[in-house]
Amino acid sequence: MDAAEFRRRGKEMVDYVADYLENIEQRPVYPDLEPGYLRSLIPNEAPAEPETYEEIMKDVERVIMPGITHWHSPYFYAYFPAASSYPAMLADMLCTAIGCIGFSWAASPACTELETVMMDWLGKMLQLPEHFIAGTHGHGGGVIQGTASEATLMSLLAARCKAVRRVQASNSELPEAEIFSKLVAYTSEQAHSSVERAALIGGVMMRKVPTDNSYAVGGDMLKKMVEEDKAAGLIPFYTCKHTFMCYPNNLLRFLFLPGNKENMWMHIDAAYAGSAFICPEFRPLLNGVEYADSFNFNPHKWLLVNFDCSAMWVKKRADIIGAFKFEPLYLKHENQESGLVTDYRHWQIPLGRRFRSLKLWFVFRMYGLSGLQAHIRKQVGLAKEFESLVRADKRFEICAEVIMGLVCFRLKGSNELNQDLLKRITNGREIHLVPCQLSSRFVLRFAICARTTESRHIQQAWHHITQLTFELLQEPNH
Amino acid sequence: MDAAEFRRRGKEMVDYVADYLENIEQRPVYPDLEPGYLRSLIPNEAPAEPETYEEIMKDVERVIMPGITHWHSPYFYAYFPAASSYPAMLADMLCTAIGCIGFSWAASPACTELETVMMDWLGKMLQLPEHFIAGTHGHGGGVIQGTASEATLMSLLAARCKAVRRVQASNSELPEAEIFSKLVAYTSEQAHSSVERAALIGGVMMRKVPTDNSYAVGGDMLKKMVEEDKAAGLIPFYTCKHTFMCYPNNLLRFLFLPGNKENMWMHIDAAYAGSAFICPEFRPLLNGVEYADSFNFNPHKWLLVNFDCSAMWVKKRADIIGAFKFEPLYLKHENQESGLVTDYRHWQIPLGRRFRSLKLWFVFRMYGLSGLQAHIRKQVGLAKEFESLVRADKRFEICAEVIMGLVCFRLKGSNELNQDLLKRITNGREIHLVPCQLSSRFVLRFAICARTTESRHIQQAWHHITQLTFELLQEPNH
Repeated sequence: MDAAEFRRRGKEMVDYVADYLENIEQRPVYPDLEPGYLRSLIPNEAPAEPETYEEIMKDVERVIMPGITHWHSPYFYAYFPAASSYPAMLADMLCTAIGCIGFSWAASPACTELETVMMDWLGKMLQLPEHFIAGTHGHGGGVIQGTASEATLMSLLAARCKAVRRVQASNSELPEAEIFSKLVAYTSEQAHSSVERAALIGGVMMRKVPTDNSYAVGGDMLKKMVEEDKAAGLIPFYTCKHTFMCYPNNLLRFLFLPGNKENMWMHIDAAYAGSAFICPEFRPLLNGVEYADSFNFNPHKWLLVNFDCSAMWVKKRADIIGAFKFEPLYLKHENQESGLVTDYRHWQIPLGRRFRSLKLWFVFRMYGLSGLQAHIRKQVGLAKEFESLVRADKRFEICAEVIMGLVCFRLKGSNELNQDLLKRITNGREIHLVPCQLSSRFVLRFAICARTTESRHIQQAWHHITQLTFELLQEPNH
Repeated sequence: MDAAEFRRRGKEMVDYVADYLENIEQRPVYPDLEPGYLRSLIPNEAPAEPETYEEIMKDVERVIMPGITHWHSPYFYAYFPAASSYPAMLADMLCTAIGCIGFSWAASPACTELETVMMDWLGKMLQLPEHFIAGTHGHGGGVIQGTASEATLMSLLAARCKAVRRVQASNSELPEAEIFSKLVAYTSEQAHSSVERAALIGGVMMRKVPTDNSYAVGGDMLKKMVEEDKAAGLIPFYTCKHTFMCYPNNLLRFLFLPGNKENMWMHIDAAYAGSAFICPEFRPLLNGVEYADSFNFNPHKWLLVNFDCSAMWVKKRADIIGAFKFEPLYLKHENQESGLVTDYRHWQIPLGRRFRSLKLWFVFRMYGLSGLQAHIRKQVGLAKEFESLVRADKRFEICAEVIMGLVCFRLKGSNELNQDLLKRITNGREIHLVPCQLSSRFVLRFAICARTTESRHIQQAWHHITQLTFELLQEPNH
C-alpha cells in the first residue's frame, strides 16, 4: 500500500470509525457466541500472497464485530469507562505516523518535553502540591505509564530500592536478599489486585489492612500493624492507597500516616477517581496527597484520552530513576548530563514508548478545562439519576455511597437472587453490567462508561432492569 | 468535536500523515535544539476554554516537528528500526475506535481470540516448534506484550515461581524469601539491559556469562558457572539468550544447555532478529528454539507492525499464568473455566490491553508472507551494500559480521577519532547514527531502519560519511 492508496483507505477508515461510533447503539452491546468462535472463521495460516483491502474490511464485519463487547456503547455499564474522544483519536493517528520510540530525550526531544509539560498542565489541573510539578527547576515531575499497574509496580520498586539503601547505610554488611525478606508493604484489603501483584513481582511481603464499614482503612489500624511488624524485626517500607471505583471516598478516610514518619513510601493510586479531581467540588477527596511520594491516575479511564495513558507523578525524580539506571553506550547522548534532560526509560518497565502526550495535548486544548469538568459532572449526574431510580424502588437497595460515576446496587434478598438477575441482564444483551462483592454480598455495579451516554439511556436501562426483575420475581422459587 | 467534524478533521489528518511520510526526507533527520526548548513555546497551563483545531495543527508544525527525531526518514540509521506501514496504521485507527480493554475473554472475545490465532499464524511463519502453537488443544501459545522488556520480565517471573514450587515440593519448610536469595539467572555479558532489569525487579542474582570473540556465549562456560553455583548451594533457575542486533548470530553459537536438564527456564529474546526468521535462509539461526520455554521477538521492530507489538510464546501456558493469578469477582465471567478461554491479563504485567492483533492481521494479509520476506531481504541487501562500500575503503574496518540489517564499522584508529567522526555526523544532521562498544572499541552502528530506505540513500549516506572523514583527516591533530 503506497501513500496514495493510504489517502483513500485512510479516509474510508475515518468514515468507518465515525459510522461505527454514531451507530453503535444498534449493535448488541455484548456478543452472543461461544469461546473459540473465531478460529473457524479464518484460515489456519497467513496468506502467502497479498490479499485486497476490501477482503479485510469485509472480514472486520464478518469476523471481528460479532465478537466485540462494545465498550463505547451507551448501553455498556460494565467494568469502568475506557476513555474515548475524537481529539484523542486524531492525536493517536499523528502519534502512530511520527512513530518515534521516545526512550531518551535525544530519541525525539519533542516526545519527552511535551510529556513533561503536559504532566505539569495536568498536575496543575488537579491542584497537585508544587513538589510534583517539574517546572524548570523542580525535583519531582510526571510521566505517562501504560497502566496503573505499572505505576504501582514502579513506585514499589523505587521504594524497595530506597529502603535497601537506607538499611545498608547503617548496616552495610546486610545482604540485599536478607533485607528483601524483611520488607513489608501495606494496602487496603479492598485494594486492586495490581497492588498484590506488585508485591509478588518485587518479592516482598504485602499486608492487607482491614477496612471499616465504608470500605475505608483507618490510620490507627495501619499504625498498629506497622508497630507490630517492627517489633517482629520486619521493615515497613511502602503503603499503597488505592481508591477503588466503588468507594473513591476511602482516600479521604484512609487516615494518613505521613510516609516520612516511618520512612515508608506512600503511593496513591486513584486510577478512576483521579479525573474527577479537576473539579473543585471533588478535589477535597484528594486531600492528603501532599504526604504522598507518588500519585497516579488514569486519564484513559475518565478524562477522554484513549488507552493507554496512565499519569504518574513522583515527588523526587531521583527516587524513581534510582530504581534501575543502566546506560549502554548506544543509548547515551550528549545532552544527558545537563540536568535539563529527562530520559523516561529510567521511569518505567519497558524501554520503548509511544508519543502519548500528544493525546493529552489535543484533548486538553479541544475541550479546555471547562469542557473536561463538564464531562465529569455530566457523568456523575447520570449516576445520581440512576441512583434515584434505584432508591425509588423499594425492592432494591444502594450498597455504597454514590460519589462519582458508579452505582452499586442489589435486590434486597439473597446473593442467588441477584446472581439470577445479573444472568438475565447478561443474556438479554440490551445492557451490560458486571458484579462485585462488598462484605460478602453479591452486588451489581452500574458504571457510567460511554462518553455518549445520556439520560434516555439510563432511563431505558432501568426500565429494562425492572422488567427483568418483574419476570424474575414471578418465578415460583423466588 | 462531533462525528461530523471528526470526519472532516480525520480526513485532513490522513492527508497530513501521508504528506509527512511522503516528504520526510526534506526535514532534518535529527533536531537542532537545546534541552528545554519546548516549554517556552507553549503556555504554562491548560486552557480554561476550548481552542480551535486549526490552532493545534499550526502548533504541530511550530512546536512538535522541530523537536522530532524522524525515525521514518530514510536518513535515519540510529538505534533500530521502528516498524511502520500503512496497513498497520489503518488497523491502529480501528483498534483505537473499538477501544475495548481486552483483559479477559469476555471483555471482548474477538480481541482475545484474534490474538491467539494471529500468534499461531506468526509462529507458523517462523516455523516455531509445535508446542508453541495454541491451536485448539495445545498447552502453549502466544501473547502480544508491549515490549521485549516485559516479555523478559514475565518469563523470569514465571521461572522464579516454578523454581520456588519445585524447591518447596521437596522442602516445604523453606521460606520463599530464602529460596529467592539462592536463585541465579544467567545471561550473556553482552545482553540487553532489560535482562539485568528483569533480575533486579525480580530480586534474583544475575550472572553474566563471558562471550567469545564473536560476542557469543559458549555452553561450556555456562555449564561451568552453573556447576560452581550449585556447589555453592545456589539454585540456577533461568537463562536468557538475547540476540543483540550487533550479533544476531550469537543465538546459534550460544551452545544450548537444554533447560530441562538443569531445571532451568530458557528464554530466548530475538527482539530485532526474530522478524528475519520468516525467511528460510535465516531460520537456521533460530535452531535450538525447541529447547526454549519461552521465545520473544518484536514485530514492531522489523515486521512492518507499528509499536507496540512484541510477540511472545510459551511452551506451557500454565507456567506463565501461574506466575500470578488473581480473580476478583468483577473480572470473572461465565466462560472462564471452560478451558477454551484465554484471559490474557494473567500473561502480562498490566491489566488493560489494546486490540493489537488487528495490526498483525492487516499487515499479514496486505503484504502476504512473500511481501514480508521481500521487505526483510531488501533491507538486508541494503546493509550488504553499505558493508561493501565500507570494505572498499581501506581507511575503514567492519567490526562484526553483517548478517542482517546492521553494519558495525569504524575508522581504523583510535576511539577518539571515531568519536570525532560521529560528532561531525550528528552535527551535520544529514544522517543519524549512534555508537556502540564492542570489546572496548568505540564503533559506529549503521542500522537500516526506515521502510522507504533505498539504494540511493545508502550511497548518499556513504558519500556524506567519506566527505566528513576527508575533512576530519585533514585536521592537523589527526
